[in-house]
Order: sequence, then structure tokens, then C-alpha cells
Amino acid sequence: MKTGLNFLVAAKRCEIAELRQLALTSALVNVTGRLVHGLQRERGLSNLYLGSQGTLFTSMRAQQIQECRQIEAELRACFDSLDTDTARLGYGARLFSRIAYVLHGLDALAGLRERVDSLNWSMRQSTEAYVRLIAGLLGVVFEAADSASDPEISRLLVALFNFMQGKEFAGQERAAGSALFASGRAEVAEQQRLLHFIESQERCLQVFSEFANPQVVDLWVNSQASAMLAELERLRRVLCTAPDGTPLNAQLSQAWFDCCTRRIDRMKAVEDRLALDLLRACEDKIVAATRELDSFHALHPQPTRDADALSFFRDASTEVRPVAPGYGLQLDRSILELVQDQARRLQTMGEELDTVRASLNERKLIERAKGLLMAHRQLSEEEAHKTMRQMAMNQNRRLIEVAEAVLAMADVLPQRQT
Amino acid sequence: MKTGLNFLVAAKRCEIAELRQLALTSALVNVTGRLVHGLQRERGLSNLYLGSQGTLFTSMRAQQIQECRQIEAELRACFDSLDTDTARLGYGARLFSRIAYVLHGLDALAGLRERVDSLNWSMRQSTEAYVRLIAGLLGVVFEAADSASDPEISRLLVALFNFMQGKEFAGQERAAGSALFASGRAEVAEQQRLLHFIESQERCLQVFSEFANPQVVDLWVNSQASAMLAELERLRRVLCTAPDGTPLNAQLSQAWFDCCTRRIDRMKAVEDRLALDLLRACEDKIVAATRELDSFHALHPQPTRDADALSFFRDASTEVRPVAPGYGLQLDRSILELVQDQARRLQTMGEELDTVRASLNERKLIERAKGLLMAHRQLSEEEAHKTMRQMAMNQNRRLIEVAEAVLAMADVLPQRQT
Repeated sequence: MKTGLNFLVAAKRCEIAELRQLALTSALVNVTGRLVHGLQRERGLSNLYLGSQGTLFTSMRAQQIQECRQIEAELRACFDSLDTDTARLGYGARLFSRIAYVLHGLDALAGLRERVDSLNWSMRQSTEAYVRLIAGLLGVVFEAADSASDPEISRLLVALFNFMQGKEFAGQERAAGSALFASGRAEVAEQQRLLHFIESQERCLQVFSEFANPQVVDLWVNSQASAMLAELERLRRVLCTAPDGTPLNAQLSQAWFDCCTRRIDRMKAVEDRLALDLLRACEDKIVAATRELDSFHALHPQPTRDADALSFFRDASTEVRPVAPGYGLQLDRSILELVQDQARRLQTMGEELDTVRASLNERKLIERAKGLLMAHRQLSEEEAHKTMRQMAMNQNRRLIEVAEAVLAMADVLPQRQT
Repeated sequence: MKTGLNFLVAAKRCEIAELRQLALTSALVNVTGRLVHGLQRERGLSNLYLGSQGTLFTSMRAQQIQECRQIEAELRACFDSLDTDTARLGYGARLFSRIAYVLHGLDALAGLRERVDSLNWSMRQSTEAYVRLIAGLLGVVFEAADSASDPEISRLLVALFNFMQGKEFAGQERAAGSALFASGRAEVAEQQRLLHFIESQERCLQVFSEFANPQVVDLWVNSQASAMLAELERLRRVLCTAPDGTPLNAQLSQAWFDCCTRRIDRMKAVEDRLALDLLRACEDKIVAATRELDSFHALHPQPTRDADALSFFRDASTEVRPVAPGYGLQLDRSILELVQDQARRLQTMGEELDTVRASLNERKLIERAKGLLMAHRQLSEEEAHKTMRQMAMNQNRRLIEVAEAVLAMADVLPQRQT
């Protein structure tokens, strides 16, 4: 018959199993981040290639595609190594569902590249395709953060996800700015998109700063040389303040791309450090939990004397605990105390986890509001997002505030005509 | 190499595995509920036995103890059947931790019964011991509700937990009322405890009504015969309105006990129905999910044509989908569509789950506030609960409001002297 000690041990084993799972997920997140980075570069080079009518950046782009193919193979190997056959729990349905979606995107990548090769797609089409694939990959990271059962690991994953998402906005800013410079003319709608990318980026980096370890935040702050930032802000000003329809210096396209790229490459270094912190935190926690498990194994539930068993009914917080060696009293009591300690610790962890996850709800609300607009107004995802962005800009509100307003209006929105 | 279809299937398998786990948990909850019911009766009979100085209810109590021993053996067999050896996930660490605690309580039960046999413990001591053990058992049910991954099952578990908790308050009301009648004198502190049990009970039954299926709510409403309710309310009035120190008719003790017992026995019938609904819901969902899984198995990912793969980049909600049989086009597209459907469904389930779980947070906040008072003011659990109850009564506020106030004051509470 199983004892309290058996379940004390079993609970610790569950924790360790969850930490091992988190270590695997963290490794997966790491490779995902590298592929996102590679695709961001490929997107940028593809735009430069398309913008030059296929005359420039041909070999750089080919080289980048080659690199992406290698990381893609690595990521697919990671996916292959996940245990999908035995119907085990752990990796949740939602993570698998995200991966299923991403795999469809990766399958479509060859076709996308061909369209760019043959100049068959516009910069806008190409950019949107890469954006969608990268969003799918970031969805995997989001899910990993949302399903982590350890609050400290979850905190690091939230920091990492937000940094990656911020970097993606930086990448979209680079693409939008490149297109604007390349077009040679200021255009108010594109300028607003650019401002949206800058703001979204800053919001993500803000969340990153709140959740990352202070050393990594310092690393990020210090990695942004003032000269680079000044140049970036100067080019942003040139791009965003030119009156609608006035000429833009197309020669600045390359300078803009280089400046943004330097920044994004530095972001990559910070991202790598975050990923490393994550892996280390998993390892440290596994070591600590395993040590604790070993200490449990050293305990033996002894035939309890009636008086010892009754300690269950005494109040743990007020009673004076006499030590009576040789009677198994201390040993037996300490198992009950260990059980109570474990329960308290798990409870505290649950509360901390709720706090960390609350930060992910902002994104969930925005996605939900977007889905609602898509369903009720028959909009595409892009159109729904643009609508909300436009509402945010017109009303000078944050995107999350618009999302909350949209959700609050859910009941009175016109039903979809079928 | 694994495909999107593989992960579509894997996600569905995860869902099924989680549902199977939930079915096992529901069975465990069912036996737990039966033991709680048995211990509630044993607690009541033990009080009558103690109140009569060991002259009355001797054989009824002995019979009830025998019945409880049988259910305890069943519950221990349930615990034994849980897979605690392989470090699998699923049953979370928190559920195991709760079980570890409960097992210590069950081990102490023999000692408790001896203390009552020999009239060594007061009614108060005996009641408090049973209350603690039952609270531990209800903690297992709470954890099952809190860790369920399916919103409908979670909703039923929340209804069941609240009904069980409400029934436990009804049991504590019975014990407190019996003691008061037996003492032969009205006492203001005891009257307030009684009112607390009545209010807490009604709050739990309110949550039950919100979450249970309407048929079960009807069953509950209809099972309370008006005559029985009238008698209960009459005795409640007699108990609660007698001025402090005035005599109470000790003869009413038996009438009170019988009236409360009839009500609690009817609650048991509703509880059984809730438990049955829960098991059926698990089974139905497993059947439906398995059928869906089979339909996935009938799909074959065909070598995708480039144009089909590119559908990933088209907008699913706006595009017109031509059916071109023989090219694998429909089949391939429909896998992507299935993946998107699954993702949307899982997202909706996640949102519904958050909503259901929010109702459990009230209890979590109260427990957290209690823990805070225990740590900062060096109170026992009983004292902390009494303090909060007193604050609620004095300020005419709900317990949850007091808990929130306590937690908000956390930073300014005096630190524990060490």
C-alpha cells in the first residue's frame, strides 16, 4: 500500500519530469529563434533583391537561403525527436497544434522562394508571406512560455518571447523602411505602419526588461552603441516626418538597411544569451530537484506510533516539536512536515506562475479580438489587424485597449451573414 | 520526417490522453466524495456519542466506522493504482502532494477514533480533527478541478467541488448546532460560527448552481422538500436567535441532527448524480475525440504541389477554395484547414478554461490570505480563519473581500519575529 512518502516522492518526480520537458522545449525554442533570425535576414535580402529587379544581392540572398535550409533541417530534426507516438501527456495539444501549422509553412517556403527568384511576387507579397511564417514560429515560442509549469522558467520564456517578438517588429520596421526609401516617395500610410512597428517593438522590449535577469537587460542596454542609436533615430525621423508625397532619398535605402541590420544582429546576441540562461536555469533546477528527491529516498516510513500519527491533527504552526530519537518520532513527523513544505512551495509556485502568465494574456486578448473581427466582419487576418491598428492610431490608444473594447462590444457586433 | 498531419494527430492524441486522465481523476473524486460523506456521518455520530458521555449511538457509530473503513480501503486502492513510479507527467505534482497529505490524515484516523472511544477528546477536538481530514480530502477534489485541461469537465468538477464543500459546511453546521443544543445554553460565539457555516454553505451552493447542468440544479431544488426546509429554518432560528446565556431545549438535539442528516443525505444523491455526469462527460468526449482521430488517420499527406503548399500564405478566411479532385489539392488543403480548425478550437477551449478556473481563484485567495496571517501574526490555521471570519462579520463584508484586503496589506504587515 502506498504511503504519504510514496506520493511525496511521486510529486517530486513529476516536477523533475516537467523540468526535463522544459529543457527539451527550451532547446526547441533556441533552434526556432535561430530560424526566425535567418528568415528575417532572408526576408530583408529578398526585398532588396526584388527592389533591384533581381540585379542586386543575388548571391547574398542565395547564401542566406542556404543557411536557413540548414537551420530548418535542424528544427525539423527537433520536431522529429519529440515523442508524438505514445499518447503521453506533457507536450500539450496546443504546442503540437502550433508545430503542425508551422510545418505547413515550412513546406511552402520553397514555393515562396521561387516566386521571389522569378520576380513573380511583389515586395509586399513576399514580406507578408515571411511575416506569416515567422508569426507561426513565434507562436511555438509563445506556447512554450504559456505552458511552462515552473514560474522562473516561464518568466525567462516570457522575456525571450517578447524579445523575439520585439526583434520581429524591428525586422518589419527594416522591411517597411527599406521599401519606403526604395520607392523614393514618402507615403503617409506606410509612415504610420512604420510608427506602429516602432511602438510595438518598444512595448515588447519593455516587457522583456521586466522579466529578464538584470544582467541580460544590461547586456541589451550596453550593446546599443549611442552612435548606432543616433543614426537609427535620424533615419527614422527622415522616414517618418517627410510630408506625404514628397521625395525620399533612395540612396539612403542601403544605409537604413545596414543600420537596422546591425541593431538586429546585436539583438541576436542578447537573444542567444537569454536562450543560454534558460537552458542553464532548467539544468540547475533539475539538479536541485534531483538532490531533493535523493534526500527523500533516504527516508523510511517507520511503523508509526499512534501518538506520532496524531500529529496530523495538531497545528503545525503553533505546536512545540520535541525531538525523541530512537522512536521514529522525528523522522515520521518530518515526513508530514516535508509534505506540508512541498504543498506550500507548489502553491507559491502556482501563484507566481499566474502572475507571469498574466503578461501573456495581453497578446491572447489581441488575438481574440482579431478573431472576433474576422468572424463578425468577414475580414482577413491582415485586415482585422489593420483595422485594430487604425482604431488605436485614430483614438490614440494602445492596441490592448482597442482589443478590450472590441471584446466588450462582442455582443452587439453584427452577426456574420451566412 | 514528421509532417503537419503527424502533429495534427499528435495533438489529438494528447487531448485523448488528457481526457483519459480526467476520467481516472473523476473516478478518484467519486470515491473521495463517498469517503467525505462517510466521515461526515462518523463525525456527527462521534459528537452524539461524546455528548452522551459514551452512552448513546455506540453501535451506530461502530457501524459507520466499519463503512468508512471499507471506503477508505477503496480510496487507498485508487491511490495505489495511480502510476507514481514512471516519472510521467499528467497527474501533476500538486495532486500527488495533496494525496501525500491526505494519506497522513488517514493514517491518523485510528488514533482519533481511539480518543473518541475512550472519551479522551472533547467534541470540539474530535470535530476539528474530522474537519481537518475532510478538508484534506476536499483539497484533492479542488486540485482535480484546477488541473483539468478540458473546460466542460473542469466546469463539472468546479460544480462538484463546490457542492461537496457546501455539503461539508452543512455538516459543520449540523455538528455546531448539535453541540449548542446539547450544551443546553445559547452562546453568542457559537451562534456566529453557525451563521458563518450557513452563509458559506449558501455561497458554495450558488457557485454550484452556476456551473452544474440545469437538470442537476433542478434535481437539487426539487429534492429539498418544503416541509424539511421549513423545519430546518425553524430550528436554525431557535438556535441563532436565543439571547446569549439563555437556555436551549436539549431535547431538540436529536430533531436537529435528524433534520440536518436528511438534508445532507439528499445532498449525497445530488452529488452522486454530479459524479455520474462527470464520468459520462469524460466518456463521451473520449469517444468523440477518438472518432476525430480515426478520421485523421484516413488522411494521407500527398506529395504537395508547389501551388498547394503556397495556400499557407493565402488568407484562409477570404480566399475562394476550388476543389480539384485527383490532384490531392482538396486533401492537402483540408489538412491545413484541419490544423487551423484545431488551433482555433484549442484556443477557445483555453479561454473557456480560464473563465472556469477564475471561480477557483476565490478559494485560492482566501487560503493565501490565511497563510499570510499565519506567517505574519504567528497564528494557527484555525486562528487565522477565525480572525478573517471575525473581520468579515464586524465589517459586514464577504470573506473574499477580507482576503483581498489582507493580501493588499501584505507589505505593511509586521514581520514575524524570529
